[in-house]
Amino acid sequence: ARRYSITLLPGDGIGPEVIAVARGVLSLAGSLEGIEFGFQEMPMGGAALDLTGVPLPDETLSAAQQSDAVLLGAIGGYKWDNNEKHLKPETGLLQLREGLKVFANLRPATVLPQLVDASTLKKEVAEDVDLMVVRELTGGIYFGKPRGFSSNQNGEEIGFNTEVYATSEIDRIARVAFETARKRRGKLCSVDKANVLEASMLWRRRVTAIALEYPDVELTHMYVDNAAMQLVRNPKQFDTIVTNNIFGDILSDEASMITGSIGMLPSASLGEKGPGLFEPIHGSAPDIAGQDKANPLATMLSAAMLLKYGLGEKNAAERIEAAVLDTLNRGFRTGDIYSDGNTLVGCKQMGEEVLKSV
Amino acid sequence: ARRYSITLLPGDGIGPEVIAVARGVLSLAGSLEGIEFGFQEMPMGGAALDLTGVPLPDETLSAAQQSDAVLLGAIGGYKWDNNEKHLKPETGLLQLREGLKVFANLRPATVLPQLVDASTLKKEVAEDVDLMVVRELTGGIYFGKPRGFSSNQNGEEIGFNTEVYATSEIDRIARVAFETARKRRGKLCSVDKANVLEASMLWRRRVTAIALEYPDVELTHMYVDNAAMQLVRNPKQFDTIVTNNIFGDILSDEASMITGSIGMLPSASLGEKGPGLFEPIHGSAPDIAGQDKANPLATMLSAAMLLKYGLGEKNAAERIEAAVLDTLNRGFRTGDIYSDGNTLVGCKQMGEEVLKSV
Ligand SMILES: CC(C)[C@H](C(=O)O)[C@@H](O)C(=O)O
Ligand SMILES: CC(C)[C@H](C(=O)O)[C@@H](O)C(=O)O
Repeated sequence: ARRYSITLLPGDGIGPEVIAVARGVLSLAGSLEGIEFGFQEMPMGGAALDLTGVPLPDETLSAAQQSDAVLLGAIGGYKWDNNEKHLKPETGLLQLREGLKVFANLRPATVLPQLVDASTLKKEVAEDVDLMVVRELTGGIYFGKPRGFSSNQNGEEIGFNTEVYATSEIDRIARVAFETARKRRGKLCSVDKANVLEASMLWRRRVTAIALEYPDVELTHMYVDNAAMQLVRNPKQFDTIVTNNIFGDILSDEASMITGSIGMLPSASLGEKGPGLFEPIHGSAPDIAGQDKANPLATMLSAAMLLKYGLGEKNAAERIEAAVLDTLNRGFRTGDIYSDGNTLVGCKQMGEEVLKSV
Repeated sequence: ARRYSITLLPGDGIGPEVIAVARGVLSLAGSLEGIEFGFQEMPMGGAALDLTGVPLPDETLSAAQQSDAVLLGAIGGYKWDNNEKHLKPETGLLQLREGLKVFANLRPATVLPQLVDASTLKKEVAEDVDLMVVRELTGGIYFGKPRGFSSNQNGEEIGFNTEVYATSEIDRIARVAFETARKRRGKLCSVDKANVLEASMLWRRRVTAIALEYPDVELTHMYVDNAAMQLVRNPKQFDTIVTNNIFGDILSDEASMITGSIGMLPSASLGEKGPGLFEPIHGSAPDIAGQDKANPLATMLSAAMLLKYGLGEKNAAERIEAAVLDTLNRGFRTGDIYSDGNTLVGCKQMGEEVLKSV
């Protein structure tokens, strides 16, 4: 049997619940394909803060680095919201991304026919939306230096950050995006603010240069403000979108809300080599934590991305994806995606139903 | 009669058409309220580039500075898209904002009952949306220094920009936003990325401090990625939004598309003192320029904002607003907002119909 070691980072809020359920589904799908997993659970986020005083303990990072893939639940909560920056759960997540060097964040936004009514967009606008945001994840304004607080000539306090991209950072994310588009419908839209920002001008220049390596992919460019509009106006026009860290943060969340079912959406964060990081895009939802109400499907679909993109185990990945669809077709719904005529279930029962379908 | 001097900047594409029509409506509404206008048309954007070699000639800026208010059509077009930065029409617009010191950009997004079907959002989600984005317009990453191109330790090219805010810049835009919210429904949502960016942490700290001066306004904070989602999920939750230059660029465009009728939406850019800048939020639409197809209503409503916010002429402003609504009620529609059962008209005829209603 093929053996992989997986680091599980349940995190905060509903994180532990969805990780527990997804773990079971991952194990079963794997074993049916001759795969064995060694799981190691490590503290991260608010849970790690409470336990160890830091949001990403060294032991957690090195366990993650030494494993074959990392599955994260969710982090954060009101309790730690007013912490200083280095003691925020979010800081732990940024350190994890940096520590794993996962520069490419793949965030699909897909409207399933079973859930098209969950979208706030009209049916004819939302149906068949199937796009992928490729977000640069370890550069730009999130990590750029100098950053901090200081004072200006008038003696006033200032807060500042640096948006910066180097050629090699743009080239490598562009290649991931072109490869992704090639495996999809062959269309790539690069989003920037090249009419104002120098960092975006270099971005556009390099993406255009890398396009020469991918003559089969159709490349277009769009300004970020227009992209924010076009996602609302006609999301179907997009296949693959590539953009920087902060624009990707905003646009991928907007795109996910367009599907109306963010409880369904997974993500993958990949580096040049080494373990990838896989996580649902939803947050830790502290208001429903511990109540067995969370939707575990996004975490299961993240486990499917882990199998496909992280381990190259396509068959096992497709087992999970098919099982999730089958469970939806059988009418099971958690509260967030419930509609009349279906069967309302909690997190655990949803897990059991998916296990039956694997 | 009260006399005001108005600088008209028709600009590019459909700019000259919508300005011509809006000028007529502004004149009539003014004269019915005892106001006389002196109009001066000046070149700006691509039109100025073709004529003088720069996107904002000195004569245009000083005419604008010396007038009581500035009404702009639209700028830009394919022809100048690949110009170097200092020769882009957009650069002229940024120079104009800087030269007029208009740090506060007010961008309403209102769904009119007559046009609710134009939205891609479901009727129950779009109807009654009435929000105002207050965007900081002369600071942040648009103007921050250092900026430019350089090379890093590896000898690679880098492109970089600086997101920076000083206390006084945040305080003054916060006050405009609180004043705006106070005149509306008393709710202000400040949008930032304070879980990651120091510039946002200072932003949140200062907005929270200024809130003490406005105990009657309810202040909330939201991360920008969440705001991009919430605008799609439930735009009605928002009254007034205040945010920085780049987030405001993205979110105000997203909000405007949610209304489904960006041909209807005006904007106002105001400084501490001196003339304000008023412009429709739509672009220059080069594909329909010169065909008498443009929707002039956004420019007329910008002229109404000019009267109200720029000159304090509330009655004349309300005349224009009421005339626009009346014309819509009489069923006249340009192509961008046309729906069955209405009368399709061009830019000029729409102008004539509104004149009848003033
Ligand atoms: C929690 C936060 C730091 C993070 C980000 O901004 O990257 C989140 O919004 C995301 O998109 O994964
Ligand atoms: C044209 C461009 C420079 C401008 C901006 O980004 O501010 C525009 O998008 C706007 O919102 O007015």
